[in-house]
Amino acid sequence: MTRYALIGPGAVGGLYGGRLAAAGHELHVLARSDAAHLRAHGLVVDTPTGSFHVEPSVHTDTATMPDVDVVLVALKTTANAVLPDLLRPLVGAGAPVVLLQNGLGVEAAVADALPGATVLGALCFVCATKVGPGHVRLLDYGAVNVGQHTSDGSAAGATPPVVALVSDLNGSGTDAKVADDLVAARWRKLVWNIPYNGLSVVLDAGTDELMGDPSTRALVEDLMGEVVAAAAACGKGMRPDFVDEMVRTTDEMVPYATSMKLDHDAGRPMEIDAIYSAPIRAARAAGCQVPRIEVVERQLRLLERRARGFSTS
Amino acid sequence: MTRYALIGPGAVGGLYGGRLAAAGHELHVLARSDAAHLRAHGLVVDTPTGSFHVEPSVHTDTATMPDVDVVLVALKTTANAVLPDLLRPLVGAGAPVVLLQNGLGVEAAVADALPGATVLGALCFVCATKVGPGHVRLLDYGAVNVGQHTSDGSAAGATPPVVALVSDLNGSGTDAKVADDLVAARWRKLVWNIPYNGLSVVLDAGTDELMGDPSTRALVEDLMGEVVAAAAACGKGMRPDFVDEMVRTTDEMVPYATSMKLDHDAGRPMEIDAIYSAPIRAARAAGCQVPRIEVVERQLRLLERRARGFSTS
Repeated sequence: MTRYALIGPGAVGGLYGGRLAAAGHELHVLARSDAAHLRAHGLVVDTPTGSFHVEPSVHTDTATMPDVDVVLVALKTTANAVLPDLLRPLVGAGAPVVLLQNGLGVEAAVADALPGATVLGALCFVCATKVGPGHVRLLDYGAVNVGQHTSDGSAAGATPPVVALVSDLNGSGTDAKVADDLVAARWRKLVWNIPYNGLSVVLDAGTDELMGDPSTRALVEDLMGEVVAAAAACGKGMRPDFVDEMVRTTDEMVPYATSMKLDHDAGRPMEIDAIYSAPIRAARAAGCQVPRIEVVERQLRLLERRARGFSTS
Repeated sequence: MTRYALIGPGAVGGLYGGRLAAAGHELHVLARSDAAHLRAHGLVVDTPTGSFHVEPSVHTDTATMPDVDVVLVALKTTANAVLPDLLRPLVGAGAPVVLLQNGLGVEAAVADALPGATVLGALCFVCATKVGPGHVRLLDYGAVNVGQHTSDGSAAGATPPVVALVSDLNGSGTDAKVADDLVAARWRKLVWNIPYNGLSVVLDAGTDELMGDPSTRALVEDLMGEVVAAAAACGKGMRPDFVDEMVRTTDEMVPYATSMKLDHDAGRPMEIDAIYSAPIRAARAAGCQVPRIEVVERQLRLLERRARGFSTS
């Protein structure tokens, strides 16, 4: 039995944290607006094969949480400015921090702010949505790749905290694997996230429409090609058929509104920094041009400023 | 006194044709849905300094139009498939055809379809809008560059039909100049059209918002840079400060919905072929990569198919 803290009981956190709790692990959830609902009704997870219900311990402040073995962070990266203060009370006892987040560079920022902390990343290949307070729905997929952060971005391999988390996840019904090289795994995930997240917002389109139109299908593949080239320039080459595999996977996916589109439509900030700006900076630093990704990033910036009311018209 | 035929009494055709008629030239207008209105009420042109009214001859078939000295074509390029049939009855007597249209390659298509015809192009730097049948409003600017098409795209210089049209336009209150090299002039106009037309549609934004946001302002300049590089690769280099001049001009412009945005908002087809696809093909043929322009073209293609009802969702 492992004691888990979960920061961010949204779609991703609710699904994986809920499964761990259902498998008998102890789950302590940090909640804000959903705290009362979670205390009264617990957490309900719907999956294509049925639903389950768990009753985690609910907290509204990490300072009053008990010591845990592992801290799962499933906030959006747009909230990461507050992460160090949230995490500080939890990592003192040596609990590793696991970032179930998209984008590039997110572990480094946490590791810099919390010297000595063990920081992992978990890449979640999942279509899930939060349908209400304490209520999460898994739509499709769900695999997780777990890797450990290193200060120089090199492969950490199957370290003990990585192996332990992968074991718990697999034991709870999640298809989890070790990512020997966390940064390489993040780049692979960006091959999907960069084309679909941005284009779905800019063009107000689902993955099915983007793939069904020959122009945006070609654009998706071109954007994927830029991500692959940038990753290779950063020393994280992928196998040659990876773009084809991502395209095929998306063709077979249920029609899906990306997380960035869900965020934008709901008035929440978009993860532009983690998913676009950090990879663009990394590509540039490695001497790799990514002009198509830059176009989408700049379009998203306008839409984000407009949504925040900072636009000129 | 020159006898003009005008094909397409919209914003551009109505403005320049109307001015020529007001200056005493004979104007024969081909009209379809607006014919009855034009016959009953003539053509009204509002300008920042006042309005004027002219009563051109209105025709519904070019086959029954009298012989004219010059044929002005101010249709959108999306209608150009019908141009050869429309123009054939008018060019037999040697009247030059003047395409007041955007994009690249439009004269070549007409010249190929009408062997022996003299084909000119007129680039209109104008903010104008058709506010109703037979009613046009000039908002800002209005200069015109006139050049003659050559089969190899070389500079034709100040040929007699070009000089004659420039003279008539200047005499009617339009600031008109000879474009020695029509293809070079078209590339210069694309420096404006490519960034603003596409981004205004994709981002549902006016020029003021695109320029007021630092991200899209940088994107506009990057797109302009790709157009300049493509033109140079095609042998049509521009002076180094041309992008700065276009940016400055747009900063000083009245907030303006581009013609492509007006078309798209009104459910009319967008001029993607002439403004995007033809320049992209020309750039590629010259060995020049224009990835940012390609992104915008592909985004527009999806939006166009969706508007035409061909989309998958």
